Amino acid sequence: MIIILLNLHNDKRSINCKNYTNSIQNIFLYEVFMEKVLTGRKENYSQWYNDLVIKAEMADNSVVRGCMVIKPYGFAIWEKMQAALDKMFKDTGHSNAYFPLLIPKSFFSREASHVAGFAKECAVVTHYRLKNDPSGKGIIVDPDAKLEEELIIRPTSETIIWNTYKNWIQSYRDLPILVNQWSNIVRWEMRTRLFLRTAEFLWQEGHTAHATKEEAFEETIKMINVYADFAENWLAIPVLRGIKTASERFAGALDTYCIEALMQDGKALQCGTSHFLGQNFAKAFDVKFTSKEGALDYVWATSWGVSTRLVGALIMAHGDDNGLILPPKLAPIQVVIVPIYKGSGQMQEVVDAGNKIKSKLTAMGVSVKFDDRDTSSPGFKFAEYELKGVPVRIAVGPRDIQNNTVEISRRDTLEKFVVSQDILVDEVLRLLLDIQTNIYKKAIKFREENTFKIDSYDEFKQLIEQKPGFYEAHWDGTPETEEKIKEETKATIRCLPFNSVDEPGKCMVTGKPSSQRVLIARAY
Amino acid sequence: MIIILLNLHNDKRSINCKNYTNSIQNIFLYEVFMEKVLTGRKENYSQWYNDLVIKAEMADNSVVRGCMVIKPYGFAIWEKMQAALDKMFKDTGHSNAYFPLLIPKSFFSREASHVAGFAKECAVVTHYRLKNDPSGKGIIVDPDAKLEEELIIRPTSETIIWNTYKNWIQSYRDLPILVNQWSNIVRWEMRTRLFLRTAEFLWQEGHTAHATKEEAFEETIKMINVYADFAENWLAIPVLRGIKTASERFAGALDTYCIEALMQDGKALQCGTSHFLGQNFAKAFDVKFTSKEGALDYVWATSWGVSTRLVGALIMAHGDDNGLILPPKLAPIQVVIVPIYKGSGQMQEVVDAGNKIKSKLTAMGVSVKFDDRDTSSPGFKFAEYELKGVPVRIAVGPRDIQNNTVEISRRDTLEKFVVSQDILVDEVLRLLLDIQTNIYKKAIKFREENTFKIDSYDEFKQLIEQKPGFYEAHWDGTPETEEKIKEETKATIRCLPFNSVDEPGKCMVTGKPSSQRVLIARAY
Repeated sequence: MIIILLNLHNDKRSINCKNYTNSIQNIFLYEVFMEKVLTGRKENYSQWYNDLVIKAEMADNSVVRGCMVIKPYGFAIWEKMQAALDKMFKDTGHSNAYFPLLIPKSFFSREASHVAGFAKECAVVTHYRLKNDPSGKGIIVDPDAKLEEELIIRPTSETIIWNTYKNWIQSYRDLPILVNQWSNIVRWEMRTRLFLRTAEFLWQEGHTAHATKEEAFEETIKMINVYADFAENWLAIPVLRGIKTASERFAGALDTYCIEALMQDGKALQCGTSHFLGQNFAKAFDVKFTSKEGALDYVWATSWGVSTRLVGALIMAHGDDNGLILPPKLAPIQVVIVPIYKGSGQMQEVVDAGNKIKSKLTAMGVSVKFDDRDTSSPGFKFAEYELKGVPVRIAVGPRDIQNNTVEISRRDTLEKFVVSQDILVDEVLRLLLDIQTNIYKKAIKFREENTFKIDSYDEFKQLIEQKPGFYEAHWDGTPETEEKIKEETKATIRCLPFNSVDEPGKCMVTGKPSSQRVLIARAY
Repeated sequence: MIIILLNLHNDKRSINCKNYTNSIQNIFLYEVFMEKVLTGRKENYSQWYNDLVIKAEMADNSVVRGCMVIKPYGFAIWEKMQAALDKMFKDTGHSNAYFPLLIPKSFFSREASHVAGFAKECAVVTHYRLKNDPSGKGIIVDPDAKLEEELIIRPTSETIIWNTYKNWIQSYRDLPILVNQWSNIVRWEMRTRLFLRTAEFLWQEGHTAHATKEEAFEETIKMINVYADFAENWLAIPVLRGIKTASERFAGALDTYCIEALMQDGKALQCGTSHFLGQNFAKAFDVKFTSKEGALDYVWATSWGVSTRLVGALIMAHGDDNGLILPPKLAPIQVVIVPIYKGSGQMQEVVDAGNKIKSKLTAMGVSVKFDDRDTSSPGFKFAEYELKGVPVRIAVGPRDIQNNTVEISRRDTLEKFVVSQDILVDEVLRLLLDIQTNIYKKAIKFREENTFKIDSYDEFKQLIEQKPGFYEAHWDGTPETEEKIKEETKATIRCLPFNSVDEPGKCMVTGKPSSQRVLIARAY
């Protein structure tokens, strides 16, 4: 028995919805009046995002400029992402290892283009000791404890890792090395935003070493495909795979592959990159190997990474004006059970029923929270779990017990059903799958509706303001034209997509010939 | 059918044991001649440890002073430890979160005793930018990018976390906070040893906040018990639980609880600590809460941690002169299968049999490696997995296939059996349990044989040289006597054990009265 109910959800809701507890009937019917917690997305998307991150208890700004505190709820999502990715890495033959946080300054000068890209906004360790201030007030840096060579907090680890691989690799028998590291990174960003761009962030960085160019190239592609798979099947975010232009390449790479997603404000978010490094780092750190045939050659390299930025992507891709919408596969709480009762007379029976439902679902591997706090009203709890994006909510009250039913609400559509307890478990499992698929489909539809072919640069300049989104345009392939577009429209060439059809055309800016459309958008 | 074989293991083994492949008979009987890879424990324990860490590919020294590279094999052990501990923390109600790596220098001066303990040998970040050297050679620190206040790389996170908790806690409803962080830590240690003491290390640090003294105290004890449980049931290392003396307390704690283990050289290793912090950090960072009754009070705190040092403990507690002996519960590879064949004629059949055994064991949740590399001989592989401490080795050759048997070897006792393939899975599962128990029992026996009651200080001074171990002695409770013992014998009071009986006696040094024996040992 499933009854779909009229959803009277309203933006002006009051936190304590006494109405609800009074109206438990055969069919649930209520209005929740709640103060608006979030700025609307249409009103101010950027403010909506900031509000949501803070109010859903995902993260806080810290006292340290540009560094965030990832709160337990936000971190639990990151842990689920880590677990899924880590399994995918291991299934493709990779192992984890750990390399030092601190890198000698001179290492950054070794690879010519790497230094330009990374040895700039870095945290520099110059001393290794503090001492009491002779004036008696607090502590000061001990001038006698100055390092001979300054150490840089890793902004990425190619240099220290390739300096280490030098000792690990002598012959083809030592190859391939397929290593990943989960670590923290510091880049002294000037304009920071929680999850999207922070001075310190968490990430994983894969660093592989190969005997042949072909094998390294294959690895580069394999990993961008792993990222795309993860984005689509776990984050429920459709992504375009493509190759970066020369000017957007990783500093030190021969080629950078990326996945690009479209956020609800029409801006692109780069969600992951995989770099074909050629022999650049092997040459910089003198890493050679003896081939089966006895020849000496430099080793081929790749590196690839995704970061806590993905938590930002998740928020921006799916959230609505009521809060987060989490894909069930990554939700720390997949189902929340809220008991509805009046007075302690009803309480015990309802709490018992709630616990029974929790056990049944937990036994099926569902992550369930039974919120039986007596310090908050059901309406307050409803709003809280809506804000936190819990995929499925179950409410159970005395009338439910009488009727052997519960009320189920799904977060993505806000629809409510009354369901017999006999089919509850099956129904919840079905719903979790359905929500995962539904939000993915919704994101695909949104991307389709906001992807435009464009041939006129004048038109593009107008449209990128009025209808931000993914624009497919012909480009003459020169850095000059790329730079002109960026300067004049703040949009960038995100990538040359993998799957774009060969379609001869003319650059929308210069009219010069072009062989395929590229993806242009404003980006985070 | 299980046949126990004569173990002809010999210290002088040659890497390529051709003997073995030639001698596949109904009953396996062979000698492996291998070059001695490790210094013997009796010869030089410290060298044995260093050799083993490097040769078993656990970790390497890095170019950065005091920092280590944790190699994939060593890291896989740490990952297994993390997974087990993380589950224990979550089962006891804790969540993970993440706080900034960098801490403002002034934070360290806030808590009077904390500054003395931690604001000394630290990595200090003074600048946030590098620039090209005007001379054209390499890069230099940009003098214009000097931080107003220096940042310290966390040596522990009480200060930054309690500064954050100030924003999280208003009322008793916000308590308790039960948070853990997995992170990297930097302490500028002068004398470093891989895993045991490194400038950068990995650890977890729990930081909890409570409304009452009793609850915080209970948490402190709960977590030292979690650590003891982990040490004994996972690491297979018996530990003594106890309380530290005032001089050995964590800087800022009212009391520090610890677990102490005995290594094979008779030295103690502190394996984990749990601190009752009282209201010290709440006062330093002004963290107050309103109680149910409306009163305002400072919050009560605990912190607790274990680190990659536990990997060192594992090596030192169980290893022998042939290499590591890993407890099956933490072994990255629990079973290795080595195929034995002559020429490609026999190969296919043996490889097929190996794969079949692997599938059967994997299906039972056993972590199995089938090493079918044709670049190394079986003898070489035997020695390698012995070095790496793989608990169970299975060898399979053509004669085994004919007889429906395999040869099993257990790493802890080096015993070998021939087993029917029909009972192979049960036998391996039984063996893994048995090895876990056996190495724990062996460690308990070792500790019993090396724990001594002592009443004469003169005798103690002699014995601690000749028979290093755990010494139980009476102590007058004064820091002066404690310091005297340390100075004169290099032994320290490790703890006042929990389970020690009330036994009035006289301090072995001063003759003054004492109410219980304390644990004294030389320590890492």
